[in-house]
Amino acid sequence: MYILVVDLGGTQIRAARCLPDGRMEERVAIPTLAHEGPDAVLNRIRQAIRSVWPQRGEVAALALSAPGPVDARTGVVRFTPNIPGWKDVLLRDLMADFGVPTFVANDANLAALGEYRFGAGRGVRDLIYLTISTGIGGGVIIDGRLFEGGQGLGGEVGHMVIEPDGPPCGCGGYGCLEAVASGPAIAREARTAIERGASSLLSRMVAAPQDITAREVVEAARKGDPPSLHILERAGRYIGLALVSLMYLFNPALFILGGSVAIGAGDLLMTPIQRTIQERSQRVYWENTPIVYAALEDDVGLLGALALALERLGIS
Amino acid sequence: MYILVVDLGGTQIRAARCLPDGRMEERVAIPTLAHEGPDAVLNRIRQAIRSVWPQRGEVAALALSAPGPVDARTGVVRFTPNIPGWKDVLLRDLMADFGVPTFVANDANLAALGEYRFGAGRGVRDLIYLTISTGIGGGVIIDGRLFEGGQGLGGEVGHMVIEPDGPPCGCGGYGCLEAVASGPAIAREARTAIERGASSLLSRMVAAPQDITAREVVEAARKGDPPSLHILERAGRYIGLALVSLMYLFNPALFILGGSVAIGAGDLLMTPIQRTIQERSQRVYWENTPIVYAALEDDVGLLGALALALERLGIS
Repeated sequence: MYILVVDLGGTQIRAARCLPDGRMEERVAIPTLAHEGPDAVLNRIRQAIRSVWPQRGEVAALALSAPGPVDARTGVVRFTPNIPGWKDVLLRDLMADFGVPTFVANDANLAALGEYRFGAGRGVRDLIYLTISTGIGGGVIIDGRLFEGGQGLGGEVGHMVIEPDGPPCGCGGYGCLEAVASGPAIAREARTAIERGASSLLSRMVAAPQDITAREVVEAARKGDPPSLHILERAGRYIGLALVSLMYLFNPALFILGGSVAIGAGDLLMTPIQRTIQERSQRVYWENTPIVYAALEDDVGLLGALALALERLGIS
Repeated sequence: MYILVVDLGGTQIRAARCLPDGRMEERVAIPTLAHEGPDAVLNRIRQAIRSVWPQRGEVAALALSAPGPVDARTGVVRFTPNIPGWKDVLLRDLMADFGVPTFVANDANLAALGEYRFGAGRGVRDLIYLTISTGIGGGVIIDGRLFEGGQGLGGEVGHMVIEPDGPPCGCGGYGCLEAVASGPAIAREARTAIERGASSLLSRMVAAPQDITAREVVEAARKGDPPSLHILERAGRYIGLALVSLMYLFNPALFILGGSVAIGAGDLLMTPIQRTIQERSQRVYWENTPIVYAALEDDVGLLGALALALERLGIS
């Protein structure tokens, strides 16, 4: 019995033929070519699926990871920040011609499920996963299942309001976690500091302030650059405050941090995160909620999609 | 078949003999006399239970509402803000001599369950209840059940961090929802405004600034007092920001607002709450999440305890 999984990204469409234990028998990656429009991308998704379809053996399900919010009940991708023209795409129904049960979910939600089933969260039935990279997404696992909220759009940890009068967010709000602690938010703070005349190693690392990314800020901080250290400290504090609220609301048994910024910055973010939750929440909460790094790497989307299919098929 | 329910408060212990449909056959209220210490209070709880015990007919369960955090899995009351000396009281186990299944939960959690089963939330399986009074508490109902978090201490909406550098909270944190929008927080802001020399009707309504409570602020605001209007507008905005985060995390189908401050202030809080969620969250969230007032009044604790017992006994 096989489960076929697809990870739709802004750059690549990846697909794999999986066994229920997580082994991948075959995998492909083809370019998304998002600029060619939704129909072309949908055709390439179908092509990727066909290329991993088994010559013999049953396909029990198809599971797809999509960027951006997905209505978990209908399999509709509401929009995708990095793939132009995708708005209310009936991704699940559009795959109906394959004739197998099909599941679709948001990539960060699936990463949570992947870490729960195959990664850093194995054996922990209540956990929250956050990915800190270009955006901040995540997923909430309650009692071993992906929590999707009362109306299918819950678990959007990146849009909790952290700073009431904070900077604008891509979602239309202000001061969301994503707007104050994502990679671009860290880069924005660094650019602002330099434009205001702060003395920083960063000025010598890039040709112009607009070339700064979170990666340079981390690199400069490792060399002791005060403005960079301050910016990461601040971002870590914001992430810590988000974790405080999440502990009071969900009281999870584990936090998993993933994403290129969290992994790249390491202790530069983890130290202020830990300090903030210890200063700002009650011991009975933080003492029982360790924070660990994600264990899965590039395959997290594919393994998350596999985990979703297994959950929905009731295979434990 | 009867369910006996107890609502332990700082002033009164109330108890009732209920039928599963919510009717109360008999009820009592006796003073808590909290200053006499935990053992005396426990004895009065037992006395209240005995006084509503039926002469004939089976008692299917006993359910107790307690103030302060309760570990839902063990029935341990961790502490109670208004009853001195209560720390890690094994309330459930201490009632074992009655020989019936016993359930204990936090009062605000039970109010949520009561509103879901018997009040403003009937028929809505995913909702969040907030009570705005001396503190801010609440409860989260997911798929028709009280959500208690992965480790039994979830749903503490009053301690979400709303203002990163906000005023201290009784929990030890800073800028929690309770610290910026509860009755005492509203009163504190009014006192500060007057002490700073603001011209306000409030100065004529009380003998000294420290006599101001949220009730006076609401009364002055109804007469058009600018500082009072501003303070309630600000509290409403903070509550609105909390609802934005809760929508993104739980995506409930309904919010229920209760508590003396929310009910007493009415539109003075509801208008800025509604404006904030419309300005700060995406339409797909706020459009599908109406906000209504609580329907149950003084009996909400008893009916909530009844609802808990019915849920745990599997009686729908």
